[in-house]
Amino acid sequence: MIDQPLSWFRPEINNMQGYQPGEWPDLNANILKLNSNENPYPPSPQVLAALSEVSAELLRRYPDPKATDFCQVVGKTFGIPADWVIAGNGSDDLLTMLVRACAGSATTRSTAEKERMLAYPMPTYILYRTLAAIQPAKTVEIAYEMQGDNWSLPVEQLIAAQAALTLVATPNSPTGHCVPMADLRSLAAGLNGVLVIDEAYIDFAGEEAEQASLALVKAFENVIVLRTLSKGYGLAGLRLGFGIAQPPLLAGLQKVKDSYNVDAIALRLGAAAIADQPYKRAITQKVMAARQQLATDLQGLNFRVWPSFANFLLVQPPDGKAKLLCEKLKENQIMIRYFNQPGLDDKLRITVGTPAQNERMLLAIQAWL
Amino acid sequence: MIDQPLSWFRPEINNMQGYQPGEWPDLNANILKLNSNENPYPPSPQVLAALSEVSAELLRRYPDPKATDFCQVVGKTFGIPADWVIAGNGSDDLLTMLVRACAGSATTRSTAEKERMLAYPMPTYILYRTLAAIQPAKTVEIAYEMQGDNWSLPVEQLIAAQAALTLVATPNSPTGHCVPMADLRSLAAGLNGVLVIDEAYIDFAGEEAEQASLALVKAFENVIVLRTLSKGYGLAGLRLGFGIAQPPLLAGLQKVKDSYNVDAIALRLGAAAIADQPYKRAITQKVMAARQQLATDLQGLNFRVWPSFANFLLVQPPDGKAKLLCEKLKENQIMIRYFNQPGLDDKLRITVGTPAQNERMLLAIQAWL
Repeated sequence: MIDQPLSWFRPEINNMQGYQPGEWPDLNANILKLNSNENPYPPSPQVLAALSEVSAELLRRYPDPKATDFCQVVGKTFGIPADWVIAGNGSDDLLTMLVRACAGSATTRSTAEKERMLAYPMPTYILYRTLAAIQPAKTVEIAYEMQGDNWSLPVEQLIAAQAALTLVATPNSPTGHCVPMADLRSLAAGLNGVLVIDEAYIDFAGEEAEQASLALVKAFENVIVLRTLSKGYGLAGLRLGFGIAQPPLLAGLQKVKDSYNVDAIALRLGAAAIADQPYKRAITQKVMAARQQLATDLQGLNFRVWPSFANFLLVQPPDGKAKLLCEKLKENQIMIRYFNQPGLDDKLRITVGTPAQNERMLLAIQAWL
Repeated sequence: MIDQPLSWFRPEINNMQGYQPGEWPDLNANILKLNSNENPYPPSPQVLAALSEVSAELLRRYPDPKATDFCQVVGKTFGIPADWVIAGNGSDDLLTMLVRACAGSATTRSTAEKERMLAYPMPTYILYRTLAAIQPAKTVEIAYEMQGDNWSLPVEQLIAAQAALTLVATPNSPTGHCVPMADLRSLAAGLNGVLVIDEAYIDFAGEEAEQASLALVKAFENVIVLRTLSKGYGLAGLRLGFGIAQPPLLAGLQKVKDSYNVDAIALRLGAAAIADQPYKRAITQKVMAARQQLATDLQGLNFRVWPSFANFLLVQPPDGKAKLLCEKLKENQIMIRYFNQPGLDDKLRITVGTPAQNERMLLAIQAWL
């Protein structure tokens, strides 16, 4: 037989830290939560109407493992076939599926199969690194080139890496910038592996941006676009995201997907949210206006503010004491996000709230300065 | 740099089939769905009351990543500390976490770390094999010894295998039998790795059985018990399960858990369901009575019926033409489960319905015989 395991857990798990989500205060506390990029506005009234129609029978039965109705609504709304859509328990679930389907390889050393790595520009959504550590899969992290306030995607280096999975978030977190579509097109054409365009924040980038990447999905079999209902649709509590790609790419993801990964309520409410695009546009436009005002106000307080196409701002306080400001605001029951990472530890990521919420935060900052 | 990947997907994914869940008919179709072991009774009225109180604010915000309130209700109900509980997006999510945390190893060939395998008796829940294939991790499958109608757990062989993860479902699917607690205790004591006691169907095995495995969790640091709300609580549509283990074991699972793996509605409704044990007992007792009647009736039709402690029966039709009967019932809009596997292909798994539903099925069988 075989020797006993040295530990309950795989060595990769023992050696890693888990992903740290933004702090989660109690729902009833008088805390202004601007640390996880939730939408300050509630979901569509259509969602609440769908909620009121959830039946005991819907709860009693397993949900549709193929999310048929939800995928049809997504397809109809965005002008793509329903079988180009896959639903996830948040877009994080889709990222997990992608890593499990494409990256890492247990047969690396004994076959012609090479290391199957993840590549992504830095800084970006730090979950990519965590998912690689869990798999495990090696990573190629390539720094964004900063030119003034402009973050330039290292397209050539990402193509040279030829990773099994290349991930680009646009708008990117925590920078807030959009990656030019021409860069994504070059990547899609130059990569042999899968290109993930993670558009969690796309609903805050304007209507044109929402359509642009879908053209890439139509043109390239190796591209998948990820969307979520957690941000633009005001439904972070529901856990629902979706991927858009051509069927051959989705076929591999279906194999690693949990059969019933999305619950029956989320599928119903999510379909209602997607169908109500006018409401989503109305609330995201309010956030975009508040973002512009907040940027102006923070610049007036001598903060450096990067241009943002998402529902948050990356900012640098005038003295660079980002961590201290984060702690001071927390004493005032205001939570924002500090990243203890090289290149980010003098900056802060602030979710854009309603005008009144932003005002409350600005007053607290002014009092401290 | 490195060579290009040969395929979008890992070779393990290309070479595997995905897990096939039971067929999923439309909610409004006049189909009697006895193929996925849903509870025929609706969830507690307390669950529907909690549903009516779900607010837009609950949906807008991310759910509690630690599922604090839900874990407290579970702890209080079952007499264990709240930090011995972990919530999952169905117990399948917890099985996935366990496999990812414990099994398979990319560093196998270069270090002292040995193969980290899965071991389980056969036949059992076939998802274990699928999860091993995805990881990938090797499996040790050891056949149950059948003595008359009795399935005897191969305890010594499972101990000898010393797998990183040993999985035992009790009541087991598709056999319906309960594994004696003494066998589980021997396993827990003899294994260096983690023992998963998968009790998805425990609510149909009587009150005493519900408590028994918790004593093993208290006695052994390497034991985790899995429960689900999909069966006994009538909440398959909600996707909610939980694990009970001592904190050091849960710490490893937390690292691979998706931060927001369970949505805010599921946490609220699930807590309401767990808190209403009298309702769960009432509906599970009705199912247990119907199970007894159905077994008697099928025996009257010369079916072989194995003793079951779950909400389904494993049966063998008199002529062994299991597949044909499954197809005939489907023509009558009645879905039951056929497994195209050695040792099971002359048998059927039938979910226990309400007395009226069982009667409808019995009439269809009689008409065919």
